[in-house]
Amino acid sequence: MTHDPTAQGGWHLTRRRWLAGLAALSIAGCASVGGGSDPLPSWHDGANKQAILKFVADVTREGAPTFVPPAERVAVFDNDGTLWVEQPMYTQVMFVLDWVKANAAQHPEWRDNPVFKALTGNDPQALHALSERELTGFVFTAQSGLSDEAYDAAARDWLARARHPKFNRPYTELVYQPQLELLAYLRRNGFKTFIVSGGSVEFMRPWSERIYGIPPEQVIGTQNAMRFEMAGGVHTLLREPKIDFIDDGPLKPVGIYKHIGRRPILAFGNSDGDWQMLQYTMAGPGARLALIVHHDDAEREVAYDRLSKVGRLDKAWDDALAKGWNVVSMRRDWKQIFPPPKN
Amino acid sequence: MTHDPTAQGGWHLTRRRWLAGLAALSIAGCASVGGGSDPLPSWHDGANKQAILKFVADVTREGAPTFVPPAERVAVFDNDGTLWVEQPMYTQVMFVLDWVKANAAQHPEWRDNPVFKALTGNDPQALHALSERELTGFVFTAQSGLSDEAYDAAARDWLARARHPKFNRPYTELVYQPQLELLAYLRRNGFKTFIVSGGSVEFMRPWSERIYGIPPEQVIGTQNAMRFEMAGGVHTLLREPKIDFIDDGPLKPVGIYKHIGRRPILAFGNSDGDWQMLQYTMAGPGARLALIVHHDDAEREVAYDRLSKVGRLDKAWDDALAKGWNVVSMRRDWKQIFPPPKN
Repeated sequence: MTHDPTAQGGWHLTRRRWLAGLAALSIAGCASVGGGSDPLPSWHDGANKQAILKFVADVTREGAPTFVPPAERVAVFDNDGTLWVEQPMYTQVMFVLDWVKANAAQHPEWRDNPVFKALTGNDPQALHALSERELTGFVFTAQSGLSDEAYDAAARDWLARARHPKFNRPYTELVYQPQLELLAYLRRNGFKTFIVSGGSVEFMRPWSERIYGIPPEQVIGTQNAMRFEMAGGVHTLLREPKIDFIDDGPLKPVGIYKHIGRRPILAFGNSDGDWQMLQYTMAGPGARLALIVHHDDAEREVAYDRLSKVGRLDKAWDDALAKGWNVVSMRRDWKQIFPPPKN
Repeated sequence: MTHDPTAQGGWHLTRRRWLAGLAALSIAGCASVGGGSDPLPSWHDGANKQAILKFVADVTREGAPTFVPPAERVAVFDNDGTLWVEQPMYTQVMFVLDWVKANAAQHPEWRDNPVFKALTGNDPQALHALSERELTGFVFTAQSGLSDEAYDAAARDWLARARHPKFNRPYTELVYQPQLELLAYLRRNGFKTFIVSGGSVEFMRPWSERIYGIPPEQVIGTQNAMRFEMAGGVHTLLREPKIDFIDDGPLKPVGIYKHIGRRPILAFGNSDGDWQMLQYTMAGPGARLALIVHHDDAEREVAYDRLSKVGRLDKAWDDALAKGWNVVSMRRDWKQIFPPPKN
């Protein structure tokens, strides 16, 4: 239950440390969404599935005191650890590491940079000694000046090629089948589904529509500063070496307010970074639902919670238990974790 | 053509000056949208109407080289001066002035503040002597600590009561009937319509859906900094005395990228503050359309352009003429300016 897989992976970076600096890509494959008479076929019958079905019935029953007009049926989902795998390390971090290595040849000035050496060397000691400031400073500087389109292309290219070290599948196939069913079920019932992630928007938008059915304009996340300018006779957007907004913890409700302008009625997270988003969602009037994925399935996925450096679930878990929020056990609630392989 | 109505109004505040500090409200009434066989009945036949009809036909014709998939049919509209009246002063500024006056009694500490005295007195000299820093500093401090919901309520209340000084109608009835028809026509053809305004989001979102058919999550604008916290036992969002993002000029393409993540294929503005949004839209590949409202109708609305302090149209006009963008004459292209009065 309190196993920390990152300790073996040689990674001791906090979530916030990595939220600040990374970014963009796309994917291969689209997961199938279950149908038939059971809208959530990959969910075991149990209290959590029943709570979801009851909630959707309640808010869609016209004339009921629990009815919510379609325009106000806003559902927000964290991404890393809630919709797809986040262990042994956030996918975006893997992308950035590979990007730095792949671009090293064109940047001889990096060669003697201690951060670069720590990132690309095989010395865990040097890596752990890096401060957040050093790390994000290097990544921001390295990627600044990239255009929106160049970043998008790099991310798409990487996602098409990269494989997860444990599951040996493209990352975009390591999305949770029960959640794909839930997203589709909510949309069929008039909900608008949003991602509210600590990851950066440029890394999610190239594939969120194809994989989750969530269009780019419904992806809220960490934002890099950008500037608009003429470059080579073409008007374009270029990355600045600066972060604009870190969409994590108490800033998740702020990100929701900025972007959506309505309080959600359903929120689904998996870590303490989602705690305030869950609180904000539940603090409104009328019918509401808060859900948390508990990663307790070491066999089919990874087991981690209170002591994990990546996706720690501690305070939000205590609060969920105290308030009766729905804690979804990956092991007991989900019949299947991932969609079947594409080929 | 180059008449400056603000010179008579006693207002010498620049747009940017006012963009920074203001905010929130709602409305009365919903304007009718024309239908029938002509999708744009309030538009005179002419080159601009034909350009719109041709563009929509081009991007929706499957198999044509100009076809654009529905998901990529993003249309962005400025608000002040493009969708509703902005003279003699931005509506949001009128709201903030009234808000300051209405709240003065509960704030005896304002009484001797020179900014407050200038804002509420009848001394144009004192008003003009204010610096932008003094002005926005006062407004930010005065409104900081207001919750999202309190702000929303204040804006709704004001909009229900306020009347435009020239037209003596609620501001939300002073929207442009031809634009309501265009928004609806675009949506019927698979477009997603967005507002991209220098005004602040909290002032537009309470009424954008009812009046324009544009939901809050498709309103992009200037953003005040917010913080999430417990207040009186309730989780809420409170205004900070600080602006987060000014959605004007070269930051409009940045706002579009942050919020939508796709380059629009149609942009409609009316002032130099929309110039870069128009450039960014037109710099992409494939079929694209740029439009500018020219306020040349002193009789039915207000005539202003190159010399106006509010909604100045100068550089963007020159660029439009050079590039053949569509400059829409309010006088010659629009049969009707406003929807009929509600009662």
